Parts: sequence; structure tokens; C-alpha cells
Amino acid sequence: MSAEQTNKKVVYTADTPTGQLHIGHYVGSLQNRVKLQDEYQCYFGLANYHSFGYMQKGEGLYKRPDFIHESVIQVAMDNLAVGIDPEKSVLYIESDVPETCELAILFSMLVTHSRALRNPTIKNEIVMKNMGSRFSLGFVNYPLLQAADILLFKAHLIPVGEDQLAHVEQSREIARDFNELYGETFPVPEGLVGAVGVLPGTDNRKMSKSLGNAILLSDSDEEIDRKIMGMYTDPNRIRTTDPGTVEGNPLFIYHQAFNPDHAEVEDFMNRYRKGTVGDVEVKKRLAEVIKTFISPIRERRKLYENDPELLKAILRDGGKKARDVAVRTLEEVREKMKLTFS
Amino acid sequence: MSAEQTNKKVVYTADTPTGQLHIGHYVGSLQNRVKLQDEYQCYFGLANYHSFGYMQKGEGLYKRPDFIHESVIQVAMDNLAVGIDPEKSVLYIESDVPETCELAILFSMLVTHSRALRNPTIKNEIVMKNMGSRFSLGFVNYPLLQAADILLFKAHLIPVGEDQLAHVEQSREIARDFNELYGETFPVPEGLVGAVGVLPGTDNRKMSKSLGNAILLSDSDEEIDRKIMGMYTDPNRIRTTDPGTVEGNPLFIYHQAFNPDHAEVEDFMNRYRKGTVGDVEVKKRLAEVIKTFISPIRERRKLYENDPELLKAILRDGGKKARDVAVRTLEEVREKMKLTFS
Repeated sequence: MSAEQTNKKVVYTADTPTGQLHIGHYVGSLQNRVKLQDEYQCYFGLANYHSFGYMQKGEGLYKRPDFIHESVIQVAMDNLAVGIDPEKSVLYIESDVPETCELAILFSMLVTHSRALRNPTIKNEIVMKNMGSRFSLGFVNYPLLQAADILLFKAHLIPVGEDQLAHVEQSREIARDFNELYGETFPVPEGLVGAVGVLPGTDNRKMSKSLGNAILLSDSDEEIDRKIMGMYTDPNRIRTTDPGTVEGNPLFIYHQAFNPDHAEVEDFMNRYRKGTVGDVEVKKRLAEVIKTFISPIRERRKLYENDPELLKAILRDGGKKARDVAVRTLEEVREKMKLTFS
Repeated sequence: MSAEQTNKKVVYTADTPTGQLHIGHYVGSLQNRVKLQDEYQCYFGLANYHSFGYMQKGEGLYKRPDFIHESVIQVAMDNLAVGIDPEKSVLYIESDVPETCELAILFSMLVTHSRALRNPTIKNEIVMKNMGSRFSLGFVNYPLLQAADILLFKAHLIPVGEDQLAHVEQSREIARDFNELYGETFPVPEGLVGAVGVLPGTDNRKMSKSLGNAILLSDSDEEIDRKIMGMYTDPNRIRTTDPGTVEGNPLFIYHQAFNPDHAEVEDFMNRYRKGTVGDVEVKKRLAEVIKTFISPIRERRKLYENDPELLKAILRDGGKKARDVAVRTLEEVREKMKLTFS
């Protein structure tokens, strides 16, 4: 049933596949995504066109089409494994909906070049990744592709963290400008600020697979043990009997995010502050917690790893559903922009 | 029959519809285009996506979708009227081939932003039209759309004037880069430098419909008389008996381009230099020449003006032929870029 039929509001969000997802993605968005499925008609994109504009370790990912392809599969499995339900939501591969590109090109006509460069995603990435002037025009088109993804499905709500509201602004502007120029077509999407957290990496830097400080949703118990036992903690605490700092200490951030026994976490924190618990004890318990959390995800993931045809069928079905909506939107857009001649 | 079947080389060229065509377009490209049809498999695009990135009188044409739509129809009729033969060549509307946008977006991943801005079309237009920073991202995507147009049909040859060879360079680079990255796919297109002329406007500025100094391919005999009799000529010649200058004098440039009686043109030029022929006599004869030239074009044009369904059928057929080829190219591109999953 389509959103129109159910009268549910439409939620859109996407992953740019650039490797497997990790527990930081879970805390930052997947967890929230799973909850949204019941209340909203959700579209979850595997934004592989976007991946081609992405840079990793100073190199454009467009040079690695096999890696992008494999990342799509991996990220699809990650989404399904955490509980994205293809019966409720549309999980689809962006390139199964080439209408995305037509809409992005049309949107690019409405946005000044200078405005596109002021987009916070673009500005931040250029600085953060030290891109200099090596970034592609496709990278500058990134926010337009994003707007196309969102508006193709006439989405009302875009899940974002509090600091990401500006990222929705470009899509809002485009929706408003399009409606004004060509007639009411798109709802102006709004950011849906959720209680999403940010999880540091095991070394207290930003969690990222390429930095080797991420716990993947597919990690084995052994990998989890190894990563947790080697975690960064309070660097000033030499002995177990030294009073330690829990604020900003990834050990406790993880406990708070994943340990369902809040009393235990409180107790750990109190004892850590007083110097009556060792890092090893806190880590061992954390490893148990994370293994308990990941175990069912890893099991569900295996279902798809062992049955690629099942995964393909789900993605094909999602692609079909997404494309049906996209084709209808494009028909309307083309009609309004007078691009149809017969 | 497709080009593959006939083994003919493929020629691609396009008009960006921004109003009706004039005799300057005829001399600059249409004349050559008509000749190319017999030797090559030609694709002639009505590049209406491009029109949306175009600026006219300081305003983005994206604000005028009706004007762009009407321009497509007018330019299609102009092409057919001068002798583009839909039995030989593919005349199609760009937006009937949305694969253009997908290919343009993919190409934008291979081109750095700074390289796109160095494109001569982009640089010249920004300066010539005094665009400041008001141009759209779509305008910067213009050369990518152009490369997509060309490479969708695996064109070998792009008709250009001698000073336009640089315009093909971006498409050549993209073809080479794509082939190197993803495997041999596109012929590297070459500029086909033809003996094309540049015709000044009736006021000796650049001929342009918006400057009111153009003789349209649809002009009536009365309009031609009026425009030719009011033409700019040698401003230093006061009396008929004054010796006049023929070099750079639009009166003689037009005679040389359109008067089939070369002896008469020579005679006019000699007498003009000596001061033994008046402007009025030269203009009257030129008006006859232009009317004789335009009359059959205008008649053929009326065929389509009076039968919009015939025109639509031709464009629909051209669109279908073009799209068939485009879909095959995109399948190959998507296969090579690993964008296909089932």
C-alpha cells in the first residue's frame, strides 16, 4: 500500500554505501529508523550514485566501482539485520531509480552554483577531508541528488541529528522554489530531530571503519572481545585504585548506549570515579553487553549472507516500489516543466 | 537501420532551443548538417534540458518553461524546413531521452569541479553574458550534459567551427577517462571542422533574435524586405558616388553567402569600391536573393505549422530511435560501473 493510500506521513533517509555499517551508525540512525517504521511510510535509500562522489583516504570512490557495489550489498544486509522490515518500509538501491538523476539535473537548474557550494555537507567535507580542489562536480551535485532522493517520494520528514538541520535546508529551498515556479508539487520536507547519539570510536576519535576503530554490526564475538579489551579509556588512570573520569570516556558512553541494566552502569560509574573498579572488569562486562546486542543482528545478517537470492528479491521488490512512485512524480514534474510533447 | 548495421560513422550535434533559428544558424551549422546526412548516421538533438541552464537578457530561462517548450517546436520545424530528413537522420528531443541525465550525473563523478569551470563554453558565457555569480549549478553541468548527449550515441564526429575545437575536448576527456576506469566503452569523439561561416546581424553585431538583428528562417517577404533595406552598410559612404568598403560589410557577406550568381557579386563589389553602384540597388538585389532562399524553407515549414500531429509523429519516432540506442548504452555503462544488482 502506498503512503497516499495509508495517509501516513512519508519519511526519507539514506545511507551512502562506503563500507559496512557499525554500532556508531546504529546509535546515530539505524535504531531510530527501526522505530519510525511503524508510524510512518519509510523509504530507506542505498544511495550508490552518491558513493561515486565520495572521497576516502584522499581517493575518489568512483575509481572503485566493485567496492561501491559490494558496499551496497553489505549496507542492505546491515539495515535488514537491525530490523528494517521490507514488509513495512521500502529499502531500495538508488540506481534502481534512475529518475533520481533526471530530477537532480532539473533541480540543478534552480540552484545557483554559489549556493550549492555553500551547502554545509559540501563545505564541511571539503575541509574535513582536506580535498583541496580535487573534488568532483559530482560531489558538488551531491546535495541536488539528495534533494531528488527526498522529493521523488514527496517525503515530509527527514530524520536528522540536532546539528544536521542545515542539511535539510537545501531540499526545503528547492521544494519551495519549484512549487513557486511551476506550481504546487512537493511538500516542503522537515527535519525530524530524533534522540540520536554520537558514539566515538574505540580510540575516542570519530568512529570510522577506515580508521579501524569501529565495531561492525557483523563482527564476531572474538573481534568484539579484542576491540573492547583494547579500548581507549581514561588515560590518566594508571592503577585500578586511581579515581577515574567517566565523562567523555568511551567505555561508559558505550555502556550507556547498549547496557540495558542502568543500575549496573550507575554502579560502574560510581566505583570508577572512586577507584574501586578496574578497567578490565568494566570492559569485560561491556564486551558481554555488545556481544549480546550484536549476536541476533549477526544471526539475521547470516540469513542474507547465506541466501543472496533472498536479498536480491527484497531489493528488487523495494526498487520496484520506489520506482513506481518516482515515475509518477517525474511525470508530474515533466508535465509542469513542459518537458512532455506528445 | 542503426549505425552499427550500416557501419556509418556517427555524427552528433544539437541545438539548445532558445527561440527560432535564423539565417546565421543556417550558414553556421544547418547547411553543413543537411550535407552530413548522406555520409553519416546523424543524431540531431533538441537539447531542452540545456535550455533550462541558459540565461537570456540576464534572466534564467528555467523561469520560462512555456518558452522553452515552444522553442523546441520552432527549432524542430526549422531543422525539418531546411532539409533535415527524418528518414535519414534522428531528430529528437533531449527530454525524450532521460538517460541523458543519468549519464551526465555519472560523468560528473569523473570530472573535477575546477575542470568543469575551466570549460570554454562555461567561461565564455559567464563573461559574455555578464552572469556574475548568478549562474546555476545546472549551467556548470552543461558540458556534462553535452558529453552525455554525444557519448550516449557513441558519436565519432562533432561538427564544429575552427574556433570551437576546445568545446569537444571535455567530451573527449570523459570518453578517455571512462574507458580507462571502467573498460573500453566510448569512441573518443573528434571535432569535424567544416567550412562553416559566421554571419553578422543586419546591424553588424552578432546575429541574435533577441537583438532584433536576425533574419529568421520563417520571415515573410515583407519582413525580409524591411530588414534588408534597413541593413547596416559602410557608414563612411555618404553618396552613391563615394567609393565604398566591401570588406566586413554585411551587405556583401550576405551576398557571398546566399547569392548563387558569383559574377554578379563580383560586379557589385567592384562597382561598390569605385562608387558606381548605390546601396539601394545592392540591397534590393540581396532582398530578392534572400527571399528566393527562404521561400521554399518557409513553405516546407508551413507543412508542419499546419499539421502539428505530423511534427509530433516525427519527433516521437526520433525520440524512440534515440532512446533505444541510449538505453543500450546505459545498460553497458551500468554494467561496467557495477550499478546493476539482479
